[in-house]
Amino acid sequence: MNEIKQISSLQNTLIKKIVLLKEKSRERKKSGAFVLEGLRELQLCLKGNYEIETIVFQEDLVSEKEINKLLDKYTVSPKIVSITKEIYQKLAYRETTEGVLAIAKSKEHKLEHTNLKNKKPLVLVAEAPEKPGNIGALLRTADAANIDAVIIANPKTDMYNPNIIRSSVGCLFTNTIATGNTTEVISYLKKKNMNIYCAALTASKSYVDTDFKEASAIIVGTEATGLSGEWLDNSTQNIIIPMQGEIDSMNVSVSAAILIFEAKRQRGF
Amino acid sequence: MNEIKQISSLQNTLIKKIVLLKEKSRERKKSGAFVLEGLRELQLCLKGNYEIETIVFQEDLVSEKEINKLLDKYTVSPKIVSITKEIYQKLAYRETTEGVLAIAKSKEHKLEHTNLKNKKPLVLVAEAPEKPGNIGALLRTADAANIDAVIIANPKTDMYNPNIIRSSVGCLFTNTIATGNTTEVISYLKKKNMNIYCAALTASKSYVDTDFKEASAIIVGTEATGLSGEWLDNSTQNIIIPMQGEIDSMNVSVSAAILIFEAKRQRGF
Repeated sequence: MNEIKQISSLQNTLIKKIVLLKEKSRERKKSGAFVLEGLRELQLCLKGNYEIETIVFQEDLVSEKEINKLLDKYTVSPKIVSITKEIYQKLAYRETTEGVLAIAKSKEHKLEHTNLKNKKPLVLVAEAPEKPGNIGALLRTADAANIDAVIIANPKTDMYNPNIIRSSVGCLFTNTIATGNTTEVISYLKKKNMNIYCAALTASKSYVDTDFKEASAIIVGTEATGLSGEWLDNSTQNIIIPMQGEIDSMNVSVSAAILIFEAKRQRGF
Repeated sequence: MNEIKQISSLQNTLIKKIVLLKEKSRERKKSGAFVLEGLRELQLCLKGNYEIETIVFQEDLVSEKEINKLLDKYTVSPKIVSITKEIYQKLAYRETTEGVLAIAKSKEHKLEHTNLKNKKPLVLVAEAPEKPGNIGALLRTADAANIDAVIIANPKTDMYNPNIIRSSVGCLFTNTIATGNTTEVISYLKKKNMNIYCAALTASKSYVDTDFKEASAIIVGTEATGLSGEWLDNSTQNIIIPMQGEIDSMNVSVSAAILIFEAKRQRGF
């Protein structure tokens, strides 16, 4: 059992650090740490073998016992700190009332260290996704489908943006994730002998006529501009989801889910 | 060509009406009207045969000529009113800079007036969806798949909530939409001899082993509580999307898209 401190001042160094880590990408990069919030998120973060430095909790909402129960299975010994209601309300998202936040150490997500579990892996690549909420949604779908990795090419935000963590409902921690520029990602996929299937509105081949049973990477771009020419030039096959209504594009997380689950269907789950 | 007025006061009756219609569901119901924003939204609203009462525009962002060009194809003659930049900034969502808003008359979306185009229709039913953004995403997917109707059972918000319009990117106007309580919707589907496929985490039958080629309604519940017992009791078959990761549910708009596009695949698009 750790010794419990109690914090009631916004000027406290730890509280200031949490605020900075939540708000500033630069601060996250500099210190190699980030903040997560919520019991489930903490649980999945532990499961993902992240190193938890500090846990702060509000005792009206969650007990120290509950937190220790979560930690029990893991060989981690974070500092555990109680905070007042007022401090908690300053730190927490409005929607959640779970009473717990934690500081954890970031992972590096380097492509060259990315191991794919399956012999014929299924990987999702998203190029330059703009909204943290979209990245979170992609990670959630990727977890549900249990694919081998999610790769963000030309990332526009760091992966530990609080909105990514939140919208992924903790699936940031359960997926194998890598980042790199588009050139590096293409070269990685080629080295792994993977088919590169680029989702493109200009494609003529339907995704349902595409064979996803071999090693496959599904590549999706942004709603605004689609994929870069570099992807389309290096594509095994450009594919399209036939659309028959008035609009000509779907949300990127919806398109990706349709493609991933068609691949899963072909592979017999 | 309509005569152009120019408004520069927030106290103007029309401006006050727009604010009220955006903010108050009660006001929308009372007056049978709503506000939409954006050129594409206006275009799809016209295409959906909505009656447009008034269009306000900001001339630095869009010309009257552009607006008249949109109206040309339709037999509508809304009042067209120019507003100052300051007024526009008060009325508009921050993200958009298209310079146009409109007041249009609501439709009733009564079940008994809902005609399904196809002999073997494909319909999506969402029970009590909580977030306007989720409803918008469902409508967008439904448009892309060109399904026969979207039915909201036990709606928790009116369909003309500005966040639904916005997140649907105008697909609120392109879909056939109906609302009703769950009992009414079940009775409607049964009268139409439709198979009722309820998405349920407790189901054992995979959606890929389900035959969507006959008249089919796909029913989805909320992430928090799933479908009500009444749906499950009246289901032709409860179906599940197999999930193999750490989390046990996907976003409702993602699940619905996977199910709808599997049905489309089986039907050969």
